[in-house]
Amino acid sequence: MCLNPDERKTLVTSVRDLFPRFFEVLMMAENVWPDGARCSVCLTFDLDAEWVFMGNDPGVAEMPRKFSQGEYVWRANLIPRILDLLDAHGVKATFFIVGMNAVNHPDVIQEIASRGHDLATHGWKHENIEGVGKEEETYRLLQTRDAISDASGYHPVGNRTAGGELSPYTHAILVDNGWIYDSSLRGSDMPYRLDNGLVIVPSYYEMDDFHLFADYPGVAPYHARMLSPEVGWEIWSNAFDGYYRYGLCYTTMFHPQIIGKPGNMMLLDRLLNHIKKYPDVWFATAREIAEHWKSVT
Amino acid sequence: MCLNPDERKTLVTSVRDLFPRFFEVLMMAENVWPDGARCSVCLTFDLDAEWVFMGNDPGVAEMPRKFSQGEYVWRANLIPRILDLLDAHGVKATFFIVGMNAVNHPDVIQEIASRGHDLATHGWKHENIEGVGKEEETYRLLQTRDAISDASGYHPVGNRTAGGELSPYTHAILVDNGWIYDSSLRGSDMPYRLDNGLVIVPSYYEMDDFHLFADYPGVAPYHARMLSPEVGWEIWSNAFDGYYRYGLCYTTMFHPQIIGKPGNMMLLDRLLNHIKKYPDVWFATAREIAEHWKSVT
Amino acid sequence: MCLNPDERKTLVTSVRDLFPRFFEVLMMAENVWPDGARCSVCLTFDLDAEWVFMGNDPGVAEMPRKFSQGEYVWRANLIPRILDLLDAHGVKATFFIVGMNAVNHPDVIQEIASRGHDLATHGWKHENIEGVGKEEETYRLLQTRDAISDASGYHPVGNRTAGGELSPYTHAILVDNGWIYDSSLRGSDMPYRLDNGLVIVPSYYEMDDFHLFADYPGVAPYHARMLSPEVGWEIWSNAFDGYYRYGLCYTTMFHPQIIGKPGNMMLLDRLLNHIKKYPDVWFATAREIAEHWKSVT
Amino acid sequence: MCLNPDERKTLVTSVRDLFPRFFEVLMMAENVWPDGARCSVCLTFDLDAEWVFMGNDPGVAEMPRKFSQGEYVWRANLIPRILDLLDAHGVKATFFIVGMNAVNHPDVIQEIASRGHDLATHGWKHENIEGVGKEEETYRLLQTRDAISDASGYHPVGNRTAGGELSPYTHAILVDNGWIYDSSLRGSDMPYRLDNGLVIVPSYYEMDDFHLFADYPGVAPYHARMLSPEVGWEIWSNAFDGYYRYGLCYTTMFHPQIIGKPGNMMLLDRLLNHIKKYPDVWFATAREIAEHWKSVT
Repeated sequence: MCLNPDERKTLVTSVRDLFPRFFEVLMMAENVWPDGARCSVCLTFDLDAEWVFMGNDPGVAEMPRKFSQGEYVWRANLIPRILDLLDAHGVKATFFIVGMNAVNHPDVIQEIASRGHDLATHGWKHENIEGVGKEEETYRLLQTRDAISDASGYHPVGNRTAGGELSPYTHAILVDNGWIYDSSLRGSDMPYRLDNGLVIVPSYYEMDDFHLFADYPGVAPYHARMLSPEVGWEIWSNAFDGYYRYGLCYTTMFHPQIIGKPGNMMLLDRLLNHIKKYPDVWFATAREIAEHWKSVT
Repeated sequence: MCLNPDERKTLVTSVRDLFPRFFEVLMMAENVWPDGARCSVCLTFDLDAEWVFMGNDPGVAEMPRKFSQGEYVWRANLIPRILDLLDAHGVKATFFIVGMNAVNHPDVIQEIASRGHDLATHGWKHENIEGVGKEEETYRLLQTRDAISDASGYHPVGNRTAGGELSPYTHAILVDNGWIYDSSLRGSDMPYRLDNGLVIVPSYYEMDDFHLFADYPGVAPYHARMLSPEVGWEIWSNAFDGYYRYGLCYTTMFHPQIIGKPGNMMLLDRLLNHIKKYPDVWFATAREIAEHWKSVT
Repeated sequence: MCLNPDERKTLVTSVRDLFPRFFEVLMMAENVWPDGARCSVCLTFDLDAEWVFMGNDPGVAEMPRKFSQGEYVWRANLIPRILDLLDAHGVKATFFIVGMNAVNHPDVIQEIASRGHDLATHGWKHENIEGVGKEEETYRLLQTRDAISDASGYHPVGNRTAGGELSPYTHAILVDNGWIYDSSLRGSDMPYRLDNGLVIVPSYYEMDDFHLFADYPGVAPYHARMLSPEVGWEIWSNAFDGYYRYGLCYTTMFHPQIIGKPGNMMLLDRLLNHIKKYPDVWFATAREIAEHWKSVT
Repeated sequence: MCLNPDERKTLVTSVRDLFPRFFEVLMMAENVWPDGARCSVCLTFDLDAEWVFMGNDPGVAEMPRKFSQGEYVWRANLIPRILDLLDAHGVKATFFIVGMNAVNHPDVIQEIASRGHDLATHGWKHENIEGVGKEEETYRLLQTRDAISDASGYHPVGNRTAGGELSPYTHAILVDNGWIYDSSLRGSDMPYRLDNGLVIVPSYYEMDDFHLFADYPGVAPYHARMLSPEVGWEIWSNAFDGYYRYGLCYTTMFHPQIIGKPGNMMLLDRLLNHIKKYPDVWFATAREIAEHWKSVT
């Protein structure tokens, strides 16, 4: 079947209306990714630093040991370390950025943008917004977007909720204010659209370096023993093999303060080398994934 | 000793009366499985989806992120993905199904039945029934069985209690209403019968993908770090080696929202390939196990 | 230096008085084990079954699922399964037995004794005895010893406290009533004597299959994920390598309901095969260790 | 650029003032370690013994089983065991010592000093000092330093806070009383200086044997399953590979009661053998690291 893009999009829309439950599966079946790619790989990093502790507990500012675990991002210059590795592999990523980090470290945020990566919002202070109300939540989202934009000149169109659950308003606020994608849900292995048109680029806890490696005593649920890098390798490389087999959207959820540790950089390097051995993999930012999904659905 | 089936059954019954404690061991010793099989393998799947969260906490319906982890089963079409793999291996399984899932997704339930698998009850909403009383528990069990039957045309005769402990009435209700087996206990490596005649097909936490891989923050006890697929491989393949050595009943307790993840599908495929290398393995549904056990004891 | 046994014992006693802190080290240095053995291996099993749950919570008797995890020991005949493996390897072990298990299953206890193993006390109901008072604690210890003796004809001389801490009286009660050793402490890698003469055969959590593999939801601290048998192999075989290097007393703390699972039997078999590859290993029961220690110190 | 030491130090100081955030990175870039070393390795041991339990809970003295897990350090003579291994490898380490251990075991403390290692303070009783006030905290720090000095003749100039967070006063007290370094923070992969001149030799939880291997029931957060020595090997050797790649300061945080266990000694031996295969590694005590850092910054 040979359709021009407009005919194709019309057909796809009808299929979605007729078979809503099978839509994403049909998309997989027809090899939905650009240029004949078999699957997509979307590297994302949540730039939390000290706000992962302070977002819901400002008192951490007075706790030198715990605070130092966030300060580590800036003092050890982990962002340039990570950007250098991404450059060495020639891949672009998405950085979800806490607003206060753009305020306090504009030079670092600008460097991320200047190296060609996608920037997106990740809470004003990595705080829980479940109960703050629609107006206040809107204000904070816009404030965060502005802070990132002011620091970098890059206009974010994506979001990942930080520090807890989404509110009932989050997805409406995003669409009403020009965001095109959100990466807070885990509802599929593929991108999908909400009824209001927002594209979801799903993310998964097993692809979250925090869930595997964070060792922050006193920050539940990270009392558990950290895992070894070998376990991360097994989880992430095995997952990739599955995503590749089924033609899905493989999305990482890394945090510079974790993946940027010296040993974990070795693991990231190893993972990227592994993925690049496979033919027909589309490395894309979350924004590119979302824009592609909008263009074909 | 060459006995006809009736003589054999009479002898077995006498042995059980004389040596109740050694009965299952005697059964192993005489190679109890059909057609000279050395051990049995019973693949089971608990189809919980969002009800694993909502069964005891309806508020999860308003928590988009947590809810999406259950919705994942339907949106990513995990059931067809799993059924395809079972077909590729030519094996039949048992699906323990939450009643509400049969109500909301009858087409999926029907597809499971139409592909030849065993369907069984697994709670109305995956809720704890310890304190609801005998009448209400009976009502819910029948309601769940009817929902599955209405969706699929298949009449369930098995049960696995969901979401907590069994009540003191569960096993009596099952027998009084025509169930022939239950798979909620862990009291042996072999099937066994309760005094009321109900066959127990035991299940084990170490064969439970939830206990190994579920990563659901806020759902105790899943704060612990998830394990790697390699660890699942080690636990499950090593267990199989032991069950095979001793001639026992190897029963898995998988959940589509866990085992259906892309990486875990690779693991399931690997496990089935491993088991199939062994001669004289009887792949059977829980119902087939139970019916066989009734026929020989 | 060639001393007769009496001269040797006199010398050792003087050394202990002069250098109390270095005494155990001196014992290692002089290759303390019998017949030139380089290290000792003491296999012990805590026969708890359902009392591991019921000792401090009698309500478990009414919880069919949890109860079945203890009942598993009897129904699946795990003790004969374990005894057969020990026989196949030609080694004797120590079984620490909950009193109520001797009352309810005298035939199983007798079988352990008749196969030549050491039997010792392990609480009346696997209950916490910290607060019961000296008189009551004495009564229960004697009652447990009598129950084991009545069932098996074997007179226990060892003890391991179950279900919590020792009381301040435990060690005095043991000595005053004819016990010669206790295996509740972790204070050395070697046997040692308390001031009252009691021999301690230390045991260690990392040699405890419960701490590695027990998966009993609702029984803290076993919310954590179970480990794989490969991890058990790594911990136990690596530990043995260290105990062998330093000439120490390697003591396992297994539980039939854990180590008796089919997969774990493969692990135990593998571990025994590993140890037996090393020359000059003394397999001994805890009683033999204790009696030897009394003879040389 | 060829500078004499004074010119170099002046330049470095200007760079630090101009580019505070990039200072440590510049230091790495210019290969900061002595004699052309590519990275530094700083082995440290926290000598806690029973005070890890008793520091915040004196009642442990009456709990024979838990107490025995700390007493193990002395009774099994773990310090000489560790010192022997360090001697065999020809490396010097830093021991952070709880004051009460110097009071109770002066001969052991003296032996550490006499073998050429660095001794530093680690709390009076391994107690939490967050709320005790500046005067009392000062008193305890001096008392601890004196106890170590009295036992060994070695004057400590380093500190690692034990048993909780630092107070707001800790770093000021240290500088005002002649300490030159602290090893309580995790703010970089390299040494760094606080505004008051104190050198921080950072330490990391993933290099902490307690976080990996401690199995102390009832001592949160050590309810989690212990890890296997193989996992320790993977974490520590992989971390070293990363520290070596980036030219950083690799600091271990071991505890004699954990790393001194027979199996873990095998792991430590293996780790040291691994590191020694790399050329241009500078093994240094924390004091040597700190003094070097003072000399170049």
